[in-house]
Amino acid sequence: MKYLNQHEAISVDEELFNEYKFSVDQLMELAGLSCAHAIAEAYTPDSLKTNKVLICCGPGNNGGDGLVAARHLSLMSYEPYIYYPKRTEKALFANLQHQAECMGITVATECPTSDRVEAEFGLIVDALFGFSFKPPVRDSFKPIMEVLQKSTLPIVSVDIPSGWDVELGPQSDCDIKPACLISLTAPKLCAKHLVNAKHYLGGRFVPKTLEEKYAMNLPTYKGRDLFVRLN
Amino acid sequence: MKYLNQHEAISVDEELFNEYKFSVDQLMELAGLSCAHAIAEAYTPDSLKTNKVLICCGPGNNGGDGLVAARHLSLMSYEPYIYYPKRTEKALFANLQHQAECMGITVATECPTSDRVEAEFGLIVDALFGFSFKPPVRDSFKPIMEVLQKSTLPIVSVDIPSGWDVELGPQSDCDIKPACLISLTAPKLCAKHLVNAKHYLGGRFVPKTLEEKYAMNLPTYKGRDLFVRLN
Repeated sequence: MKYLNQHEAISVDEELFNEYKFSVDQLMELAGLSCAHAIAEAYTPDSLKTNKVLICCGPGNNGGDGLVAARHLSLMSYEPYIYYPKRTEKALFANLQHQAECMGITVATECPTSDRVEAEFGLIVDALFGFSFKPPVRDSFKPIMEVLQKSTLPIVSVDIPSGWDVELGPQSDCDIKPACLISLTAPKLCAKHLVNAKHYLGGRFVPKTLEEKYAMNLPTYKGRDLFVRLN
Repeated sequence: MKYLNQHEAISVDEELFNEYKFSVDQLMELAGLSCAHAIAEAYTPDSLKTNKVLICCGPGNNGGDGLVAARHLSLMSYEPYIYYPKRTEKALFANLQHQAECMGITVATECPTSDRVEAEFGLIVDALFGFSFKPPVRDSFKPIMEVLQKSTLPIVSVDIPSGWDVELGPQSDCDIKPACLISLTAPKLCAKHLVNAKHYLGGRFVPKTLEEKYAMNLPTYKGRDLFVRLN
């Protein structure tokens, strides 16, 4: 299986929208749903000290995947709580937030303290930055990155562990250590730097022709599964 | 569990879009995916004489669900072939068709003959008309309805068996007999007229507040399942 560099990841994404004519709504729904399913496989509610999940959503599409995953987790015996500090004007994101709130999920702008996170939650989902991220982390996200770095809770990263260089992996000033990574579409090069972490692939929507063009050599998804374990 | 009348079904749909701010892209993707999953549960490829599935898509949202289901079935060891005679100008539908074609699925406008259907396919998906249908069937759809009525293959209907009155069930001039019905969101009254048919519920996205407003009393979806068997 191929690990994509940042340029390839961006090109694959653009082709899905421009050549294959998928809408962001469609693929974000499928990506977020596959994250929720992989989480439900990796961390069943009764394997956690509580079913409360802190979902940290960044300003871009990675954050959107988190908003979708939160909604689906709330339909599967989890109690998500969303930290979503930087919102965009785009209707899609406002609607995803509204849908989550309609499901009874709190969507907060205030960064939770480390003490609160450790006391209240059983799992953290890191949907802060995705494959278009370039270090360093902006100041406004440093407080939540610090919470994630300090936490003893398992962290599930969506597509890219936040703060990591998409190709080079952990950066000295800001390296969170996810217990689980869910790569979307295809893994990116940074995933080679995972240590003692579960690794899943989600985003079961890649057309064969696109897979072949980028020589992705994706693994086979089993049955109806929306994810596949890579290690 | 409640069976919705036509007015309720239309109202629930409108509320999902207007009050809960879901996009059609999102819910059609989830609905079509749940249909593909229920089909994969009810009719595994090796239980059929062939994995070729004829998917008959109507001009509205029911047809859109069929286009989405076809794409996901093609990712799960089925070979879908779409009959989609009446297309709309809407970008969503043109894009769904394009995505299916990019997956290598034929999307045809010519009605297949009964002989061809019996010889070539193992399963038929009926995504012609949905919950806003009012009898009688328009002339242009009579040929495919006749193929469905005559067929000995199992027919899976999406949400409403096509030609049926949404509340009263089979109509004398045009009653197909599905072997399986996949109700979406909540079953409609016509589902009480099913005979010897598997019945699934799909569309695991209904907010609790909406379920309660309409006293739907939905069954519990198990684990990660996107459908639940009702009988």
